[in-house]
Amino acid sequence: MILNERPPWEVHSSKVELKMSHSQIIKSESASSGTMIDALTPPARPLFQKLTTFIDAECRPAEEEFEEKLDGFKIIPEVLLALQRRAKELGIWNLFMTHLHNITVHDYGLMSEQMGTSFLAAYATNCAAPDTGNMEVLHDFGTALQKERFLGPLMDGGMRSAFLMTEPDVASSDARNVCTEFKKETRSGVEGYVVSGRKWWSTGAEDPRCEVFVVMGRVVENSVMSKHHTMLVVPSKSPGVTIVRSLTVFGYDDAPFGHAEVSLDDVWVSKEDSLLGEEGAGFKIAQSRLGPGRIHHCMRAIGLARRCFDVMVERMLTRKVFGKEMARHGMSQEKIADCKSDLDCARAITLLCADKIDRIGAKAARGDISMIKYAVPDFVLRIVDKAMQVHGGMGMCEDTMLPRAYSYVRTLRIADGPDEVHKMVVAREECKAALKRMGIAVGSKL
Amino acid sequence: MILNERPPWEVHSSKVELKMSHSQIIKSESASSGTMIDALTPPARPLFQKLTTFIDAECRPAEEEFEEKLDGFKIIPEVLLALQRRAKELGIWNLFMTHLHNITVHDYGLMSEQMGTSFLAAYATNCAAPDTGNMEVLHDFGTALQKERFLGPLMDGGMRSAFLMTEPDVASSDARNVCTEFKKETRSGVEGYVVSGRKWWSTGAEDPRCEVFVVMGRVVENSVMSKHHTMLVVPSKSPGVTIVRSLTVFGYDDAPFGHAEVSLDDVWVSKEDSLLGEEGAGFKIAQSRLGPGRIHHCMRAIGLARRCFDVMVERMLTRKVFGKEMARHGMSQEKIADCKSDLDCARAITLLCADKIDRIGAKAARGDISMIKYAVPDFVLRIVDKAMQVHGGMGMCEDTMLPRAYSYVRTLRIADGPDEVHKMVVAREECKAALKRMGIAVGSKL
Amino acid sequence: MILNERPPWEVHSSKVELKMSHSQIIKSESASSGTMIDALTPPARPLFQKLTTFIDAECRPAEEEFEEKLDGFKIIPEVLLALQRRAKELGIWNLFMTHLHNITVHDYGLMSEQMGTSFLAAYATNCAAPDTGNMEVLHDFGTALQKERFLGPLMDGGMRSAFLMTEPDVASSDARNVCTEFKKETRSGVEGYVVSGRKWWSTGAEDPRCEVFVVMGRVVENSVMSKHHTMLVVPSKSPGVTIVRSLTVFGYDDAPFGHAEVSLDDVWVSKEDSLLGEEGAGFKIAQSRLGPGRIHHCMRAIGLARRCFDVMVERMLTRKVFGKEMARHGMSQEKIADCKSDLDCARAITLLCADKIDRIGAKAARGDISMIKYAVPDFVLRIVDKAMQVHGGMGMCEDTMLPRAYSYVRTLRIADGPDEVHKMVVAREECKAALKRMGIAVGSKL
Amino acid sequence: MILNERPPWEVHSSKVELKMSHSQIIKSESASSGTMIDALTPPARPLFQKLTTFIDAECRPAEEEFEEKLDGFKIIPEVLLALQRRAKELGIWNLFMTHLHNITVHDYGLMSEQMGTSFLAAYATNCAAPDTGNMEVLHDFGTALQKERFLGPLMDGGMRSAFLMTEPDVASSDARNVCTEFKKETRSGVEGYVVSGRKWWSTGAEDPRCEVFVVMGRVVENSVMSKHHTMLVVPSKSPGVTIVRSLTVFGYDDAPFGHAEVSLDDVWVSKEDSLLGEEGAGFKIAQSRLGPGRIHHCMRAIGLARRCFDVMVERMLTRKVFGKEMARHGMSQEKIADCKSDLDCARAITLLCADKIDRIGAKAARGDISMIKYAVPDFVLRIVDKAMQVHGGMGMCEDTMLPRAYSYVRTLRIADGPDEVHKMVVAREECKAALKRMGIAVGSKL
Repeated sequence: MILNERPPWEVHSSKVELKMSHSQIIKSESASSGTMIDALTPPARPLFQKLTTFIDAECRPAEEEFEEKLDGFKIIPEVLLALQRRAKELGIWNLFMTHLHNITVHDYGLMSEQMGTSFLAAYATNCAAPDTGNMEVLHDFGTALQKERFLGPLMDGGMRSAFLMTEPDVASSDARNVCTEFKKETRSGVEGYVVSGRKWWSTGAEDPRCEVFVVMGRVVENSVMSKHHTMLVVPSKSPGVTIVRSLTVFGYDDAPFGHAEVSLDDVWVSKEDSLLGEEGAGFKIAQSRLGPGRIHHCMRAIGLARRCFDVMVERMLTRKVFGKEMARHGMSQEKIADCKSDLDCARAITLLCADKIDRIGAKAARGDISMIKYAVPDFVLRIVDKAMQVHGGMGMCEDTMLPRAYSYVRTLRIADGPDEVHKMVVAREECKAALKRMGIAVGSKL
Repeated sequence: MILNERPPWEVHSSKVELKMSHSQIIKSESASSGTMIDALTPPARPLFQKLTTFIDAECRPAEEEFEEKLDGFKIIPEVLLALQRRAKELGIWNLFMTHLHNITVHDYGLMSEQMGTSFLAAYATNCAAPDTGNMEVLHDFGTALQKERFLGPLMDGGMRSAFLMTEPDVASSDARNVCTEFKKETRSGVEGYVVSGRKWWSTGAEDPRCEVFVVMGRVVENSVMSKHHTMLVVPSKSPGVTIVRSLTVFGYDDAPFGHAEVSLDDVWVSKEDSLLGEEGAGFKIAQSRLGPGRIHHCMRAIGLARRCFDVMVERMLTRKVFGKEMARHGMSQEKIADCKSDLDCARAITLLCADKIDRIGAKAARGDISMIKYAVPDFVLRIVDKAMQVHGGMGMCEDTMLPRAYSYVRTLRIADGPDEVHKMVVAREECKAALKRMGIAVGSKL
Repeated sequence: MILNERPPWEVHSSKVELKMSHSQIIKSESASSGTMIDALTPPARPLFQKLTTFIDAECRPAEEEFEEKLDGFKIIPEVLLALQRRAKELGIWNLFMTHLHNITVHDYGLMSEQMGTSFLAAYATNCAAPDTGNMEVLHDFGTALQKERFLGPLMDGGMRSAFLMTEPDVASSDARNVCTEFKKETRSGVEGYVVSGRKWWSTGAEDPRCEVFVVMGRVVENSVMSKHHTMLVVPSKSPGVTIVRSLTVFGYDDAPFGHAEVSLDDVWVSKEDSLLGEEGAGFKIAQSRLGPGRIHHCMRAIGLARRCFDVMVERMLTRKVFGKEMARHGMSQEKIADCKSDLDCARAITLLCADKIDRIGAKAARGDISMIKYAVPDFVLRIVDKAMQVHGGMGMCEDTMLPRAYSYVRTLRIADGPDEVHKMVVAREECKAALKRMGIAVGSKL
Repeated sequence: MILNERPPWEVHSSKVELKMSHSQIIKSESASSGTMIDALTPPARPLFQKLTTFIDAECRPAEEEFEEKLDGFKIIPEVLLALQRRAKELGIWNLFMTHLHNITVHDYGLMSEQMGTSFLAAYATNCAAPDTGNMEVLHDFGTALQKERFLGPLMDGGMRSAFLMTEPDVASSDARNVCTEFKKETRSGVEGYVVSGRKWWSTGAEDPRCEVFVVMGRVVENSVMSKHHTMLVVPSKSPGVTIVRSLTVFGYDDAPFGHAEVSLDDVWVSKEDSLLGEEGAGFKIAQSRLGPGRIHHCMRAIGLARRCFDVMVERMLTRKVFGKEMARHGMSQEKIADCKSDLDCARAITLLCADKIDRIGAKAARGDISMIKYAVPDFVLRIVDKAMQVHGGMGMCEDTMLPRAYSYVRTLRIADGPDEVHKMVVAREECKAALKRMGIAVGSKL
């Protein structure tokens, strides 16, 4: 890979004029009738159109071949690699790095919705988790060396990465429980850490192109709590790293990307190469990954829900039971109506949240981000479940993407913090607002 | 009442520039944190601020006195009449006639939300149903004479009206079933109709100021179906009109406005005075009442939900059970989080629908209008129900407005067409869209 | 009133043979198809048949006249008094005192279900709350004097009583919060208490025949917690007792029985006349009221749900919309099916709980009693709500008993402890069982 | 295999005395606290105890080895074969053939619940679908020859079978759509049929021991509708039979039993060997499979739910989040309480239905059977879903049986008729009952 003269992550564009974004949002139509182009800021429009055409004309049609050519975690089917080359050529590449394209989080939200309509689209455009979050982290906190070694190749698409956060032995929904150890140890005069721990749900760790892990742990020597949780960049082929097994979700192994359990046994890394930000910055970095990322996840889930809704209605219009098309039966009509409002609700609150991030930043929009995190998967699961039901036996098996869609969205209620934690966050935000309104000091009550 | 030189309904302003509206919508904050002023078009901003101040400082505080002074249907407590004078003086009067104020449906939606936070606000500002719909109908379809006789006084606030649609003897959810008879009869050389039938749920008919009914029925002589259903303007004191009884909703009679059962026994009216539009225009006129009107209803319900949500959270923060504030209990936190997402969903889809009406008109937005009609009351009822539960016995009785709020919102699932009918409409719209996408002629399937 | 030679509460029959009960339960049919007689123990069968005939032929037909003759809290319409005389004559009187009739809690549960199908039946048969609970308390804890003065007349039906537990100023869902004061004071050499406090939701306190209150409070002088909460019998006409107001539930005042707010201002009572059990026995006595009482409440609610379900289906079969009976529409069919399973579930778990009380006692069945307390009203509300929806406007007003039914059942989610408290109880019971299974000492975890 | 002197299916015992069954049912405790032995008829008690011990001590512990030894559809792991030998030895074999053991459907329901707590138990005891239904069909409708050739070996456990009903090309929820063709053709003077069609969801067809298919189709020559749908017994190795593929459910292939798509291309069978009952008896035979079978499915699902509930509570008691055990958090407590009532409701209505079948037969209990068919999986799914949520990532993967449980129970909402069809059945039954009550002839309305 040859880097551009200026590294790609520095191609900052002039700041997008926010007013443009707002002026257009409302024109984005309801989910099932597609997205109107003028909901986007001007810089986003040609990108969106190219992306949509690419997904409709190239990604969805390629899904079947991709499935056929799969061979566990050994290879990435050529059809996906070809799609990646094509997307790069079209300039619809790394779109999640919105500042590079002079677009807004809201713009990218609408693009994520489109990506959600094909299982291949996010991979094809280098916009798939966990690389997106890892690239953001490297961009914001990485040293020049880390950027050159990892961020460049990741942005180029030839390398992949994993994020090693969750641990099997502790309730990771409370991130303070994370207990992988970073023990300070100088080897050959070089300062460094010995990493020991076990991680799981390390998505992408088994991808044959995966070269780097971003690992959360704690520096054992630091007695001050604020210096504890720390993030390290660890090359995935380091001695002591073992892929213990591939986890399945429902029955799917999600090859060739997968969700690995990874053992880290006395893995030594140098401080200079590995430390992200500083010791104790673990939470801050982890948080930074989560704001826009949740918009992406939700909007992709919504795109997927739209696809499921569309196939459900199409099936109802073409399948006859008890003498008439399913669509003429009242129970079917109620399903359609319920799905439609679920879909529109999910979409509306997520886009509003995206816009809020554009305007006031992810930190201030924290409550809304937590809210969509629990509300959207719930809406989407209801839609996917109805679509499965309408498809009968076909809706349970590999002849539709429905059970896979269900399985994927179901994990969203757990990944990046379970519903329950996000409900606590929202409740706290609302209580704070109420106390303020009531003129009561927050400290005395919460 | 002295009319302005130009009648009030002709003060058309220059067309509001739609782009302004869109550019601002997104800035309206989530319900519980109030509405940001810059979500409104510029002409709406000062109105909105005056309205909000008026409601907060004058309407809600007046509720208690209003309740105390109530004496069935005999009088309108002076406190409300004073509020009306005040609102007129402030220029926050007849705001629902958006074209008079150069504001959008979306702007008025945000104002309706504010009105929903006090039971008196819509009455105080001459924006209460059914007068709003009746004024619109008179404005759009009335003759000059009808406008002078009824529209002027209604807009001035000294007169009230009722809409006589639903009938106890037929399933009025299918409006074609309406069977009140309009029999042609010329008296003293004047063409006219003899009206016979029974109506109920005629809201406002018992208000002592009610002077006029808008009545749906069918012209018995017209053999052609398209000439059947017709709308007449009938003075409420006409011979043959009897208020049979006041209906209660749950246990409330909703005095002094009420919901009457009305008997029309051989009520003769002249064609010139009474006919709205033309014979057979009944459905068309009925439809025209319903578009923006549903935005108003939904947004008021949402404002009410916000009030209920606020009192729920405040109660949780100040009431201790089992050793700590309710707000510290997990079951309470889950209730807050669920209410918050319900509220934001309801609000987001309704505002999007309002904007759609602004952009493409109520007819084209029909599907969305039906969707909010069934989706919003469901969200709001869940919120009110939780607020009642949190208040214990107090939440069931007159010490809170909660049971009344519940009762009011529950009727919204039935009034103007039950949920089931609106779900059928949405299902049909979605099926049409799907057939189009599939390249199948609609006629062959629906 | 002339007492029998042996006071009525002493007519203990030979112990019912429990095996009989079990052998029959299963034959009780699903709710909507009526109750088979052989689900009852032999002694219960003739009573059940007389009761059912009485309710069907006399109570439900009398409802209309009762409503018409109502005049607030001033009188009890004669038609109810006549029903009472008739029920006493038939021997279907005080059936809730199961030991007097040699029947089981399960038998009486099935009878309560029948009573639920008419608003008058429980009153007509002297089986209405709160008298039932008060009579039980007097029976189990009263002195001979208290029994003669109050229990006899209550059982005879000429006197009524109220239970003063809940207080407006504290979260009474945690009964330890109750703070009405019992201050020891000897007057004229007679030991006694001065009662001061405010109670509300004192059902029946306004009935013109109400003579006695059972009052929960705390003896202020007792420093030991276990001597604190105490129950007193207080004559309702004592100096210092004031009915402050009638509370409404949704808009209903539930006259002529009502729910009163009662002020107790320095009400002196003698210890001998008033103390129930001993000082500090308040909780124990309060608990004793709640076991079988919850079966009664749930089964009556289920009987009411069956009535609502029946009228819903009948309406669907006779009302046409969009060209065919509602019952032929798919959305209606789904409603019927959902109601049917809700009804059968509610009924099955309540009858199983009743039988459990028969076999192992209310204390051991505590978890099940809490479970039906939150599960059954939820099922029943869903049924009543659907029945309202199907009736359109008629379902909201006094033309059906539906809104009243809804309002009544909604209070069951709060009265005698809100859902949330009972869910905590069930969770604790299940956790204890799990700890035992796991071999972990309960103390270490809960 | 050597048959007993009297074939095993003829060992009819003296008719079980029904009263015994009823007398005991009620004593079966709520699900989570286990089943009391005296809820069973006396003949069932020793069987139940042996079965429970066998499942607890041998089946569940064997699950891990079974999983490890699996090798697709090639072999049945020896551990299962050993369990089968053991069960046969213990006499807990073919228990579903209740008449052989002198037990009731209700007894067997309680046994099925136990079987549901281990994935291996039904197979180990020769009580797994679809063999159970097929054996019943062969028993009730088979010729002596068919019984000897197939029923004997199936009952002995050495042979397995499949039921070929559903077809990929038609909406099989309306069984009249089934279109596999049986063409009459005499070969070598022997009357027979040529079978042509495609079936799927043929559970067990890939089991290496599967020798026989029971196939639904229509005799093409029969012009009379009542002679159309017919059932044939077809040896699975017949020329023209092809296993097209294994279907997955969510991602599971359910090896070694599986769900096959089967192609039947001109498969000739003799009439004497193959015809079950007579031509046109297809529906009758299909129906006969479904009554008690649905009890078995539901009770096994309930047993599974109990297992999931138990692991959920145990996890809550041992896992700490935010400073205390999950079980101490209010949101957890609400989950426990909701699961508990869901579980008890599911169990209660299914056992009542089982008893109804014992008393009045499956045909008369049709409505109840349809009701449990849609109500029970819904309850169970809610429980399993909560258990997954509480387990976080572990709840999604193979470290718990939870996602597999979810996937299995989800199919129950579709298999043997989707929810929607069963809701129609229940609605029809309730409407019939209402019409009868109203004195209206059914014919005129339904």
